[in-house]
Amino acid sequence: MKCKKCGTKASVNMRQHKLALCKEHYLEWVPEQAERFIKKYDMFSHGDRILVAVSGGKDSLSLWDILVRLGYQADGLYIGLGIVGGFGYSSESHRLAAKFADERRLTLHVLDVEAEYGQPIPVMSDISHRGQGKPCAVCGLTKRHVMNRIARDRGYDVLATGHNLDDEAAVLFGNTLRWSGEFLLRQGPVLPEVSGMARKVKPLCRFYEREMTAYALLRGLEYIYEECPFAEGSTSIYYKEALNRLENDRPGTKLTFYLRFLEARQQGLFAQQADARQGLHLCTNCGQPTSAPGLCSFCRMMYKVHGEIEIP
Amino acid sequence: MKCKKCGTKASVNMRQHKLALCKEHYLEWVPEQAERFIKKYDMFSHGDRILVAVSGGKDSLSLWDILVRLGYQADGLYIGLGIVGGFGYSSESHRLAAKFADERRLTLHVLDVEAEYGQPIPVMSDISHRGQGKPCAVCGLTKRHVMNRIARDRGYDVLATGHNLDDEAAVLFGNTLRWSGEFLLRQGPVLPEVSGMARKVKPLCRFYEREMTAYALLRGLEYIYEECPFAEGSTSIYYKEALNRLENDRPGTKLTFYLRFLEARQQGLFAQQADARQGLHLCTNCGQPTSAPGLCSFCRMMYKVHGEIEIP
Repeated sequence: MKCKKCGTKASVNMRQHKLALCKEHYLEWVPEQAERFIKKYDMFSHGDRILVAVSGGKDSLSLWDILVRLGYQADGLYIGLGIVGGFGYSSESHRLAAKFADERRLTLHVLDVEAEYGQPIPVMSDISHRGQGKPCAVCGLTKRHVMNRIARDRGYDVLATGHNLDDEAAVLFGNTLRWSGEFLLRQGPVLPEVSGMARKVKPLCRFYEREMTAYALLRGLEYIYEECPFAEGSTSIYYKEALNRLENDRPGTKLTFYLRFLEARQQGLFAQQADARQGLHLCTNCGQPTSAPGLCSFCRMMYKVHGEIEIP
Repeated sequence: MKCKKCGTKASVNMRQHKLALCKEHYLEWVPEQAERFIKKYDMFSHGDRILVAVSGGKDSLSLWDILVRLGYQADGLYIGLGIVGGFGYSSESHRLAAKFADERRLTLHVLDVEAEYGQPIPVMSDISHRGQGKPCAVCGLTKRHVMNRIARDRGYDVLATGHNLDDEAAVLFGNTLRWSGEFLLRQGPVLPEVSGMARKVKPLCRFYEREMTAYALLRGLEYIYEECPFAEGSTSIYYKEALNRLENDRPGTKLTFYLRFLEARQQGLFAQQADARQGLHLCTNCGQPTSAPGLCSFCRMMYKVHGEIEIP
């Protein structure tokens, strides 16, 4: 297999795109594509201040790397979740995120959940009884709250996450199997700014997971290989595997599923009135948007954990 | 496992319904459920004349059996497709459909495609170059045309087919992976009557395929076990297998996928204007509805096959 651009030996072959590239041209191609997606979905411009949510994994570090290379003003946010695992998941991912930032003299905000909110994620999860024995629900809720809070408090215009096509297609697959209208109307590369919440964007949403792995490896990024120890057996991994089998038999299935969804929605497949974001309220404690009047889910959880609410 | 109704040894255990039944109560339960679906989706009433499309397989013969037991006026239509296969697929399925009708003194209309239209399905397919080497596209087109024609010419109010949940979920799965809006808006247990075309209904659409197999076996129906020899490797079988894996891991997935879809659509998930059935035309040759002005797809195919069009 030869590189389509220069004819030397290809390093990456993308069946679904019918495209093979050598290392050099692959490392050019990924940022070019990312720039195309950023423009196509009108994610942000060079004047915007971008906060990248960095986990220490391949996707978020690659995203930060790509945005900086493309000349965007991108700072990082690392959230210390306090997940110990067998190999020290949180401390190792923190070390790698900090190393990445230091080597490039980039700004990395760090928020340690235990220091800030009194308990690490697994303990919060135990106390609050959310998520049926798994801390993933509490973790997601906390990360969303913290990202919104830091973006707002530090005056960022946009919050960027490293979700790739496999992540997005798996979420879409789950929402579709249940036909969750509320989520089908909202899921996408851009979640517009609403009062108290910065715009959220997913610049990698059209890259296959393996494309991001190839990028991180060929770019020589040092990232945490291990999945979070709590991810095992999760629904999202289950849906990813189901989609991988379909993709394997028919290359391009995953991309078509996601892109045709975005296209069909834009062309008016869904009725607009079902958009739940129309009726958002502001949490009476933290001021972040929430679906019902009163406290948001995060503040209700904090109340369970501490038995009291602190005004932030 | 014991029968939920009488406590004797159960013959059928339905994990997804958390219900086990003995032979006697299963043979009661299936028609009761069918009657529930017929009423729920307002398919037809006892005053309607129903034409059941009978292939000789377990689903269509069970459907006919159930409708007659429920006291509906149901005649059969067998379409001779001229598929020879290794074991004489068409002649064997014809024999079994005729036997079923004779034993019960029911009316079975028979239309032989070769006698009526000059060629059997596989030859029509070869000549017309539809469907990429497989006769399935031509077969589906022809069956739809013939069913509509006989229903109209013989004055039936409703056309009933034996599509089960596995069939319906597989079609929905394919349409969803591609987000085919036109089909998503139309697929369902009832396709209302339009000018020149009888109402179409699928009374078995909420029964799992294995539930229908169990019904046919326990009822002692003699049906053709083999699939059509051309079905091997088809997309619908591929999607059925994919859904069966999901169902196997999480019983009820298939039923939830289909029912939540119907529910969400009824609750207004989709924008109504995309319904393609609004702008139907009538074929200038056969008078059946078609999406574009002029000849319908079937008559265009017949023109290819014969080089001329006969007024029916």
